[in-house]
Amino acid sequence: MMTNKAHALRYVDANRQAFLNALKEFASIPSISTDPEHKEDIRRAANWLVSELKRLGFDNAQTVETAGHPVVLAYTEPRLNDAPTVLIYGHYDVQPPDPYEEWENPPFSPWQKGEYLYGRGVSDMKGQVVAALKAVEAITATATLPLNIIWLIEGEEEIGSPNLSQFLEQHRHLLKADVALNLDTGMLAPDQPTITYGLRGVAAFELRVYGPDHDLHSGLFGGVVHNPAQALCELIAGMHDASGKVLVPGFYDHVRPLDDEERQELARLPFKEAELKRNLGVPQLYGEPEFTPIERIGARPTLEINGLYSGYTGQGSKTIIPAWAMAKISTRLVPDQDPEDIHQKLRAYLEANCPPTVRWELIALAGSPASITDRHHPGVRALAQALRNVWGKEPLYRREGGSVPVVGMMQRILGLESALSGFGLPDDHIHSPNERLHLPTWYRGIQAVIEFLMSYPDFAHS
Amino acid sequence: MMTNKAHALRYVDANRQAFLNALKEFASIPSISTDPEHKEDIRRAANWLVSELKRLGFDNAQTVETAGHPVVLAYTEPRLNDAPTVLIYGHYDVQPPDPYEEWENPPFSPWQKGEYLYGRGVSDMKGQVVAALKAVEAITATATLPLNIIWLIEGEEEIGSPNLSQFLEQHRHLLKADVALNLDTGMLAPDQPTITYGLRGVAAFELRVYGPDHDLHSGLFGGVVHNPAQALCELIAGMHDASGKVLVPGFYDHVRPLDDEERQELARLPFKEAELKRNLGVPQLYGEPEFTPIERIGARPTLEINGLYSGYTGQGSKTIIPAWAMAKISTRLVPDQDPEDIHQKLRAYLEANCPPTVRWELIALAGSPASITDRHHPGVRALAQALRNVWGKEPLYRREGGSVPVVGMMQRILGLESALSGFGLPDDHIHSPNERLHLPTWYRGIQAVIEFLMSYPDFAHS
Repeated sequence: MMTNKAHALRYVDANRQAFLNALKEFASIPSISTDPEHKEDIRRAANWLVSELKRLGFDNAQTVETAGHPVVLAYTEPRLNDAPTVLIYGHYDVQPPDPYEEWENPPFSPWQKGEYLYGRGVSDMKGQVVAALKAVEAITATATLPLNIIWLIEGEEEIGSPNLSQFLEQHRHLLKADVALNLDTGMLAPDQPTITYGLRGVAAFELRVYGPDHDLHSGLFGGVVHNPAQALCELIAGMHDASGKVLVPGFYDHVRPLDDEERQELARLPFKEAELKRNLGVPQLYGEPEFTPIERIGARPTLEINGLYSGYTGQGSKTIIPAWAMAKISTRLVPDQDPEDIHQKLRAYLEANCPPTVRWELIALAGSPASITDRHHPGVRALAQALRNVWGKEPLYRREGGSVPVVGMMQRILGLESALSGFGLPDDHIHSPNERLHLPTWYRGIQAVIEFLMSYPDFAHS
Repeated sequence: MMTNKAHALRYVDANRQAFLNALKEFASIPSISTDPEHKEDIRRAANWLVSELKRLGFDNAQTVETAGHPVVLAYTEPRLNDAPTVLIYGHYDVQPPDPYEEWENPPFSPWQKGEYLYGRGVSDMKGQVVAALKAVEAITATATLPLNIIWLIEGEEEIGSPNLSQFLEQHRHLLKADVALNLDTGMLAPDQPTITYGLRGVAAFELRVYGPDHDLHSGLFGGVVHNPAQALCELIAGMHDASGKVLVPGFYDHVRPLDDEERQELARLPFKEAELKRNLGVPQLYGEPEFTPIERIGARPTLEINGLYSGYTGQGSKTIIPAWAMAKISTRLVPDQDPEDIHQKLRAYLEANCPPTVRWELIALAGSPASITDRHHPGVRALAQALRNVWGKEPLYRREGGSVPVVGMMQRILGLESALSGFGLPDDHIHSPNERLHLPTWYRGIQAVIEFLMSYPDFAHS
């Protein structure tokens, strides 16, 4: 006779199109958290989730207000007292689609091509959220859940989860769980299930340099005032040496060194430099020469310029000295760097290096520290077996360069470890035009979540 | 009995409001030459001039097509054979108004406040063009013109007059004149009439730096690719030393040195550093320490960043590595620098300094050499006397930092010297938001043009 798990897996096969349609519907809502103009779309996305969760039998599904965008919350009620609890984390917000003109089709009209679904958020992370929803649907439609589930799906991940820690504090009692399942990290290849145990933190800023109080005619005043666009470039240029090492004094002070064992393990990860250069379209890789590319992405901090703006950017020329110039700057942090400490060090760099001919302003945006997960936690072991069962292959363990602030918050505030994986691929173009999701991998991902939820109780009790 | 001149001057007093209304009408046409969206407005401005000129009796007034925007042309017909000919040059195009939001009122709805008229182009140079039109109107309404006039009013000055030299070549026969009156330069103060004898040239560029072929997630790829926005800043930072000297190799090669006599004369020009800093709102001036501010503006070349663009520039943060970055760069040139030579030197700098981790592209926009006018030319002497008669004061002679490409073109192609002045002031905010025109000075300017046109024949024959 078929096991409950087998019934659930068969339900997935029978409902592939319906699952895909649900994702298309969800991904067509432009829930861009950084842009105030999309406040209502954010709400529509949250409400879409609430109705889905109610359909799954979570009658208490609700949107909980925060100082920013609402959190979607739902949990098993009544609670199974002899069963463990898994908190399923996700976020329903997405990155802005710009540069809009580089999309083959409108970013919020998801379209299929070959084995891929394209659209903003299909991989990061609406596809992952729908995978979890459909895994639970497959189980509840064919059997009963052997554990308690708490759904926590936020709307501010792409802007650094500024209000989530307060939410966790306020609802600590409701959020008691044995492990958090977080599908916001990816896998290295379609045939290579991957568990992420280390994540980089982030600290993001806006740097403004002010020159004259209005744009000046460059002919009448060129030669007597310091051009703020030039001054900004001079300040930015001083932040790295030619090899890519960050020169902001003290930037590396608290970086936890890589030990030989971990360096050896990271060296086992598959990495093809030629293929990466081709995928990215860059003539040559760049970065601290004394570390491998995988070490630089996973275990070393970086400082990036995300955007520049000053003066005239239209067609042709406009011969002005602009009044001001702006740069968006973000740093990726590793253990044990602290975002506020990095903020102060950047400020000290500017104080020391900004010439007296211009004025500067540094605005601190999102910030969150890096995190490392205990790899021997039952949740991580259960996830490893689930991935093994579906892919028939040992998962790889890696540190990822991205940042998932909630992981560190849950550790600090709830004492809760996260089991991190996901079914996105390195060439999904997340945060970029034509973001996509590899559907065969996505369906396997739904199976993997079923495997995890069905078998977790055994690990929790062992 | 009143002289013809006196009648003409009285006509000005009697028609001040009508003259101002004409300028308001002209300045309300958004004739922005750099922006293709305003092609039709450019034509409206040209046609406005043609009808004004016909009203003044120039029945042959017409718009002449070029590869770009049309030139407005008109001339005395039949020609007075025993009288000299003055070519009155002007341009009817204006700079873009952006940053639009910094205007107190819409830039193309001219408004009056105190002694000023505000609006894009009122000073540079629609106000100057209308001053010449109204001076001729005042003469023809009360007497007869003692000389031949050729009107040449172009529509591409603000984009470097790319098609004017070909126009001058093609119409050389029609453009024979004794002097060109060019009112596109300003005066140092309302009580200080000024003649400009030196102008800087310009060479403008767009520099693009390309990194990955699409925006990348800075977490997943930060540490392995060279950020093109950072690379652009590094290239720009290398173009100046801390004192403001340009480091592009060979940039100063052909700069004509200032002789002691000219340095002494320039030193006589009024200059108040504290006042300039206050007017511009800069904490401190900047530029080559071995030259005075007036020398740096008038007689030294500069390299300016006019604009920057890359990646995400909206609200909040977007943690990407942008695919590309762009800078608008313009250089102000002095005798005997050549725009194409500077173009090649900038190219050589980029070839030598751009790292192999990114690609670059340099697009040459407008270019024109600097020019010097013979200060003993009858036209310059006649202009000096006209200014003296109106202001009761000796005009100052100066080199201006701005560029008026047509001056050099007329010297080279027509063998025609220009008498350069104008009735704009240093704090007119030309090329900036809230551009303005000082009306009392403007009315005196109309009188000065009458003085010049009525007395020029005596100088031409002397």
